[in-house]
Amino acid sequence: MKMRDVSIIGVGQTKVAEHWDRSLRHLAGEAILAAMKDAHIEPAAVDALYVGNMLSGLLNGQEHLGALIADFVGLRGIEALKVEAACGSGAAALRLGYAMVAGGIHDLVVVCGVEKMTDTVNAETTTGLAMAADADYESIHGVTFVGINALLMRRYMYEYGVKHEDFAPFTVNAHRNAASNPYAMFRERVTVEQFSRARMIADPINLLDSSGIGDGAAAVVLCPSTMAGEYRREGVVRIRASAMATDAVAVHDRPDPLWLSAAEASAFKAYQQAGVGPRDIDLFELHDAFTIMSALSLEAAGFAERGKGVRLAQAGEIAREGRIPICTMGGLKARGHPVGATGVYQVVEVALQLRGEAGPNQIPNARLGMAQNIGGSGATVITHILEAQD
Amino acid sequence: MKMRDVSIIGVGQTKVAEHWDRSLRHLAGEAILAAMKDAHIEPAAVDALYVGNMLSGLLNGQEHLGALIADFVGLRGIEALKVEAACGSGAAALRLGYAMVAGGIHDLVVVCGVEKMTDTVNAETTTGLAMAADADYESIHGVTFVGINALLMRRYMYEYGVKHEDFAPFTVNAHRNAASNPYAMFRERVTVEQFSRARMIADPINLLDSSGIGDGAAAVVLCPSTMAGEYRREGVVRIRASAMATDAVAVHDRPDPLWLSAAEASAFKAYQQAGVGPRDIDLFELHDAFTIMSALSLEAAGFAERGKGVRLAQAGEIAREGRIPICTMGGLKARGHPVGATGVYQVVEVALQLRGEAGPNQIPNARLGMAQNIGGSGATVITHILEAQD
Repeated sequence: MKMRDVSIIGVGQTKVAEHWDRSLRHLAGEAILAAMKDAHIEPAAVDALYVGNMLSGLLNGQEHLGALIADFVGLRGIEALKVEAACGSGAAALRLGYAMVAGGIHDLVVVCGVEKMTDTVNAETTTGLAMAADADYESIHGVTFVGINALLMRRYMYEYGVKHEDFAPFTVNAHRNAASNPYAMFRERVTVEQFSRARMIADPINLLDSSGIGDGAAAVVLCPSTMAGEYRREGVVRIRASAMATDAVAVHDRPDPLWLSAAEASAFKAYQQAGVGPRDIDLFELHDAFTIMSALSLEAAGFAERGKGVRLAQAGEIAREGRIPICTMGGLKARGHPVGATGVYQVVEVALQLRGEAGPNQIPNARLGMAQNIGGSGATVITHILEAQD
Repeated sequence: MKMRDVSIIGVGQTKVAEHWDRSLRHLAGEAILAAMKDAHIEPAAVDALYVGNMLSGLLNGQEHLGALIADFVGLRGIEALKVEAACGSGAAALRLGYAMVAGGIHDLVVVCGVEKMTDTVNAETTTGLAMAADADYESIHGVTFVGINALLMRRYMYEYGVKHEDFAPFTVNAHRNAASNPYAMFRERVTVEQFSRARMIADPINLLDSSGIGDGAAAVVLCPSTMAGEYRREGVVRIRASAMATDAVAVHDRPDPLWLSAAEASAFKAYQQAGVGPRDIDLFELHDAFTIMSALSLEAAGFAERGKGVRLAQAGEIAREGRIPICTMGGLKARGHPVGATGVYQVVEVALQLRGEAGPNQIPNARLGMAQNIGGSGATVITHILEAQD
């Protein structure tokens, strides 16, 4: 069955920060209204709103975000719901929006990722993040989400003979790029020495291995590619691929904890859909929740051989001038990681690069960009490949 | 753009109960495996799993249900995510599954609604249910979810000159039907006198106006109608319509609190898609979370005039022998209301009726059935119309 090509005609985002004075709906509203303005559309044209969010129930005491946010942004009455796939919720919502347009269910869809991780009720943010892991078989033993990633990092260092300081280039690169992104949470550059001396969080993961906890929202407007010209003449970005895969949630249930098989499956399904390979990708917004996840993602998605992800970073190939620039606007590490919003931030950033609107962070002649959003420690992975549409 | 017709080829459900000995994944697993067996499919044939759930984050400390449940039922690797739309989460997940098959994204999809409301962590169930309301403008004042419905019921009684005991037929009918449903939570018949003397919960809503809190899961298997014959010769049920609409979450933001405009919009969109009207519907599984919601639903969906929903019930028209049988397997009131699962339970029950497998509860010659799942006090409404496919 032939599906329709889908394009992004508008993007919007809030700064990632501790927004003590603003609720979930205000954050989502700012991003959505910015995206709708960017797309030159009126509320009456919108068919549906899909919201990606992970933590609003536990941390904000609010579910039902679909109807709540639709109403707040002037879209009362439309189809609206929330999608949850742990830290992959944002891209999962985008995947849903893409499918609704590709399959002909809707013409004009708004997708928003939003998360409010500071100013919480019911539980601490750490308790919230642990819900991405297996409550009955991992969290119940007291291991935190960063603890699980620490186990993976330790194992990686042991298996491949890598030292902690070897991971520094991921953080240095992310902070360098965030410094010139006005929407980023941490805009200070970081040196290798600062990285090595940072406060320990869960050995061997220290503060500068870890993405920042923050509040934020990002949004995109989708429509069939053939209709995109009605809304904007330039800067249309086509979704060339959208692919999702899963794995066991508990790390101990995976035959090989150091291989993100869902990331591999998701990326290679996406390559197949787009008819391209890793060599064709001009930039890669990967899910650097922790430096170890950057290394594992580069390997699973075919940019580095097994055990060589860190080496690719050390060789400078992940910088804006390198072979495969990653985290070009700061990544989860330095732009910040409002978990359910992150997948949409990544896609907004790729879209800005393909539109040539990434400012000082622009990757010259970027034509094809990839975004990969990961839920948990690799159990849900959604990959999108975007292309500048002339 | 032409979309594909979609059919239900398998259904499964657990008994609704206080399942103290079983976790979320066990409940979901029982329903999913039953549905897959009923559909005669192997795990390798399944393309995706969509899980409807509202409360798992707050009450069970577990998000990431898509990957978690997919893995548990032998579907590791497939596309899987969770959909949340308050008490409408189940039908929202079904709507997503429908769209994915109708639009040609996937061929074989499993949809599961699951909820575990007893044996909770982090908060009480009442706190969880309040997340369907507006946390910032309703719940913050201390009103519970039943309290909001009580305000609606009191206003309805005042506006239309209806007494509390007039609502009794809804409860009597639901319990009568549940008595012969082995999956129902409350299988005792209830008299008008018992109804009137039941313990007050939130005046004027008493215990027997209210649906039961319980644990449960229900599942369906979907495929293109043209492929359904490959899996089963008889008992295929076609989805003739799938429609979703929203409204303001906070009741005070609606111009007319006694009119469920999203229920009206959703039902009439569904009628239009199916090319039918209320007169053509043989049974209606409505969202009787409270008796007041039954009355409002009958009115909004066109089965009774404004203010006459209670009269329709008093006239016996909602019974199995009446003009529009509702809650034929016990409804939310007596089958039980595991919130995120309810929308799928409703569709399973309609499917069983259309297959002629409703046992003592069978509506003779049922050909066209409707299920309407409501999130919050009417802010999200999803309507499906199903037809027996020969």
